Formats: sequence, C-alpha cells, structure tokens
Amino acid sequence: MSAADSTLLLRAARREPTPVTPVWLMRQAGRYLPEYRALRARHGFLELCRNPQAAAEVTLQPVRRLGVDAAILFADILLLVEPLGVGLEFAAGEGPVIHRPVRSEADVARLKPIDVESSVGSVFETVRLVRRELSPAVALIGFAGAPFTVASYVVEGGASRDYLHTKRLMYEAPAAWHRLMDVLADATATYLNGQIDAGAQAVQLFDSWVGTLGPDDYREHVLPHTRSVIRALRPGVPVIHFGTGTATLLPLMREAGGDVIGLDWRVPLDAGWAAVGPDVGVQGNLDPAALLARPAHFRERVKAILARAAGRPGHIFNLGHGVHQDTPPEHVQALVDMVHELSAR
Amino acid sequence: MSAADSTLLLRAARREPTPVTPVWLMRQAGRYLPEYRALRARHGFLELCRNPQAAAEVTLQPVRRLGVDAAILFADILLLVEPLGVGLEFAAGEGPVIHRPVRSEADVARLKPIDVESSVGSVFETVRLVRRELSPAVALIGFAGAPFTVASYVVEGGASRDYLHTKRLMYEAPAAWHRLMDVLADATATYLNGQIDAGAQAVQLFDSWVGTLGPDDYREHVLPHTRSVIRALRPGVPVIHFGTGTATLLPLMREAGGDVIGLDWRVPLDAGWAAVGPDVGVQGNLDPAALLARPAHFRERVKAILARAAGRPGHIFNLGHGVHQDTPPEHVQALVDMVHELSAR
Repeated sequence: MSAADSTLLLRAARREPTPVTPVWLMRQAGRYLPEYRALRARHGFLELCRNPQAAAEVTLQPVRRLGVDAAILFADILLLVEPLGVGLEFAAGEGPVIHRPVRSEADVARLKPIDVESSVGSVFETVRLVRRELSPAVALIGFAGAPFTVASYVVEGGASRDYLHTKRLMYEAPAAWHRLMDVLADATATYLNGQIDAGAQAVQLFDSWVGTLGPDDYREHVLPHTRSVIRALRPGVPVIHFGTGTATLLPLMREAGGDVIGLDWRVPLDAGWAAVGPDVGVQGNLDPAALLARPAHFRERVKAILARAAGRPGHIFNLGHGVHQDTPPEHVQALVDMVHELSAR
Repeated sequence: MSAADSTLLLRAARREPTPVTPVWLMRQAGRYLPEYRALRARHGFLELCRNPQAAAEVTLQPVRRLGVDAAILFADILLLVEPLGVGLEFAAGEGPVIHRPVRSEADVARLKPIDVESSVGSVFETVRLVRRELSPAVALIGFAGAPFTVASYVVEGGASRDYLHTKRLMYEAPAAWHRLMDVLADATATYLNGQIDAGAQAVQLFDSWVGTLGPDDYREHVLPHTRSVIRALRPGVPVIHFGTGTATLLPLMREAGGDVIGLDWRVPLDAGWAAVGPDVGVQGNLDPAALLARPAHFRERVKAILARAAGRPGHIFNLGHGVHQDTPPEHVQALVDMVHELSAR
C-alpha cells in the first residue's frame, strides 16, 4: 500500500472501509481564521492566490489547526479565466467583478484563448510546495470551477441571484453558449491535470451555482461539458463533483461523472446517495449555518448525517457549502473532532 | 353553478376538468409593464400598495392586457408586519429594508402586536374594488407571505443569500423563533381571512425562500406554523402553497397544507406532482428566465410542461417564480396565448 493509499480521504473516495469517517471543509482556509486574516492584511486577494509561498501557507493553516483529513488548495476558480480578456477584478468586499461580461455571440467570438500556464502556472507551484510540507496521512485536493459555474460569472459579470444573462445566452444563442463552455472545459481539464501532475491526489469540480437550472437545461447545456472535463482527467485520481441546490440534478451529475458526488444540506444524505447510486461515494452535508450556533446545537445534526451514511464505505464528511466567514474557529474545530469521535468504528 | 365556480382557475384548483389549462403569472402586475411604470412614477411603492384605487388599477392592468385567468392582488408581503415596529422601508431600487432586524430572544420579546386592520385594512378595500371591476370569468387571488419567508426578512433585515441570522436564531433560540412564527402565523391567517371576506376567491401563501432549509429544519421550524395558518382559513377557498428550491420539501409542504402546491422550474412537473400526491393540484412551472428569450425559444418548454401534466385535472399554469422586470410584455402575452392554444382539449 503506497502512502497515498493510506490516507483516509482517498480510501473513502474509493469506497474502501476506513476506521473513522474522513472530514474536511469547503473554505476551511479563509477569513474565519485569524491567521488567514493576518496574512491577507499583507497581500491583495489575487496576489495571495498567485504567490505560491503565501497560497501554500494559507492552504496549510487549517490542516495545522484543525486536524482535517485533507488540505484543499487555496486559489480562486476565476484565476483560470483571466486570459479571456474579460476584465477580472476582485473588488474589496464585493467578490469578483468582470468588467466586460460575455453576453452575445459576438462577445464569445472575441474571447482570447486561455493560456493555462500563464494564468495558473503559479498554482502548480503552490501544489508542489504544499505537497512537500503535508503529512503523508493528509490528502491534497486540487480543484477548479466547473464550466457552468465559471461561465455564469463570465456572463453575469459577478455573482448573481437569478442568472438571467446566463440563461438568455443559453436559450437564444445556444451555439455561442456551447462554444464558451467548450473553451472553459478544455482549459479546466488542462488546469486540473496540471494540478494532478504537480501532486494533487484528488480533485474537486465546483459547480456551485448549477442548481439554478432544471434537469432539462442541465442535460442539454451543462452535462456534455462537465463530462468532457472529467473524462479528460488522469485516470486513478478521484474526482469529487459538487454543486448546491442540486436535488433534482443528482442523477445527471452522476452521469456527467465523478467518483464522489458532493451533496448540499437540502437533501438528506441517504436520499442523495440513493439518487446518485451505490457505485459512487458521497460528500457532505451539514448546513454551514449550523456552525454559527454552539457545538451542543449541531452535535445531533452531525450524528444524524453519520447515521444516514450508516457506516457505508464511501462517505466523506463535509459541509453542504463553504465555511461562512463569521464562523467561530472553535466551532469548526469542535466539528472536526466530533466527526472523528462519533464515526469511530 | 355559481359565477365563481365557473372560472377556470377555481375549477382547476378543485381538480375539476377544464376546457383549457388556466394560466396566470406571479408578478404579472409590475415593472415589466409600461402602464405600471407610468403609475409608479406618480406614487412611492408603499403608497401604491396602500392606496386602494391605485393598487386595484395595478391589479387589473395585466388582466386587461394579457387575458390571464386570474388577477392577483397587488400588495407586498411585508405590509402586514409594519406594526411590529422593526422599521420597514422600501428603499429605492433595493427592495425592502428592515432597520431594526429581530435577532435575539430579547428582540422577539420587544415586538409590538400586529393590528391587522391598521396595517392592511386598505388591502381589504383593494380586494373589494378589484372584485367589483373584474369579469366573473376571472378569479381574484389574494395572498400573503408564509411565516418563514416573512420571518426571514424580519430577521435578516432584507433579502438574503444564506439566511444565516435566521438560521442562527432558529438553532440557538428555538423558543424565540417559535414565538415569532406564532405571531406571524396568527396575523397571516387573520389577513388572509380578511381578503377572503372582502372577495378573494383563492389565496396563495408565498414561502418563496423556504428552499434554503433542509427537510429536518422545515419539519421542526416551519411546518407547524404554515399548517396553523392554512387550518385557520375559511373553508372552501382554495389555497395555493408556493415556494422555490423546494424539491426535497414538497411532501412536507403538502403535509402543511394547500389544495394546490406551487412548483418551481427545478423539478419536472410530473415528478413534483408525484411528490405531493394525486389528491392536490399543482401550479407551475416555467423558468421565468425563459421569457427573456423569444417565444419560439420557449414554445417547446411550454409544450413539455403541459405534456407532463398530461391533461390531468388540477394543473394551473404559471411560472416557477415571478416575472422578471426586464421581460418584454409581448413575450408574456405570447406565453398566455400559447398555454390556452396548446392545452385546448
């Protein structure tokens, strides 16, 4: 058994039995941690993402503090698309802004090619630095945005509630939509393979906002592109495929691919697992809002999630979405300890 | 057969066969209509809601223009809670703002009682005016926010993405949460009964944001309160119970009550109907974003929804949420005509 195979996370991702349920948390590195805020005070957000030493440090902070079973690379899903020439900026406190959103066939035609090495070459260096520091017992997860979620930022110009521009492009100019998705899917596969080559042992594809679509739209406008990303990845590296609000999309997400499907808190873990089928694992699915309350208030919820997994190999404990920035770090710590304690077999 | 019984909408709400599928649209009165914008230019939003003549005119505008099968009262779900003393304001272009959000046990204890007559007495007058003008073939639907959705505004202080304050109150101070929900449920039942007494022939309960919760939270923190509203309503008046993002909540919403369950576009209409059971009707469920594209692009979607209803009595056609303000009115017109044409039996 190689060192990699001995990590809890990779064993669970392959649906092998583990002595305890592995746990990591989306956005476990970030603003809720004082050591992150200290580093962030000295670097702009994009600069932090692009500086391998700093990004590696941010990646490692929660591993040291919390004892989670995986590190997730610190980066942003939009780094990859900077070369498109859409005017990406991280405005203070507002999240990403895209100054020249892509909303028509002509806008798509005007996009510059994505040179992956130039946009995210520094990320590969971060992966190498982290892997060098990390204990062999802790898995390093690489990640990228899935084509739909990245496209939604590129088309909306930032975060959105209703994704109206995205859907309008999809409905009125389907050929342009598919071209945009092809461009993103190709770059995403290259990006993830670069992370794998640099040392990532698993990768997560974040299709965070895909839950705005119904199943018919997903099947036609998203599935082929997500599938083409996942099929292009190096074999043998587990893929975690995640989205929120996906209760009605789960069988299609499974069809698109992934060894583990990420569930949000809206679907009971057992129902979600039934929807994706027994031949994949599941990751999730505590509501991140639960961590705002004291540990005594979320202990029963953690128990209920573990009970729904019923000790079946293939469950990776996580939140249903990222840690919120005003979460007390000691609550996060309590969660990690609780999962290990309550799942011990 | 009374005049009321002859309307398509009421017959469908009782699951009686109709010659065509009735159609109306959430937010069919509103900013996408030039005649609304003309009136709105002369009145503030709250003033428009509270002026019975103006509100009746806004209610009737889409009926005249579109030939929909129902009018829905023009009002706002937050009018009811103004007496709570939380500092409700409709800021220009920003939606509702609540200046003193309710986030603790002490905040809940401090709330003033809701005097329904003082907060929404003018709405009852609007109902009477509209009913007087409306053709007997067109049903008048009254409405209110469901307790959870209204509570979410009161606790968050406005619209929200993650509902963190709401969930924190729910988890850390459940007794205060239930007290707040009791207050809202009581006032809501009185409000809806007042609309019914004034002439509303059906009512819709909008639990628009309840999809942020998983089923366990819904069952414990929402269901008893929504049920108490619905049980307190005058018998014989159909209740439409609506929310978005509710794929995993549908059986529980049905348990809470309603003769018709509103579905959003994320769930295929037949799957949604199966989830709520054959002894209720369903309303929905075209994605409102579809109306931004030209009618040729949404015709197949409308056909697919009607095919999933399979001509079964009990389907009311609607969007999965409200009409977006930048929707071309002629697209809305095309939709209404299309539903009548394609569903003719």
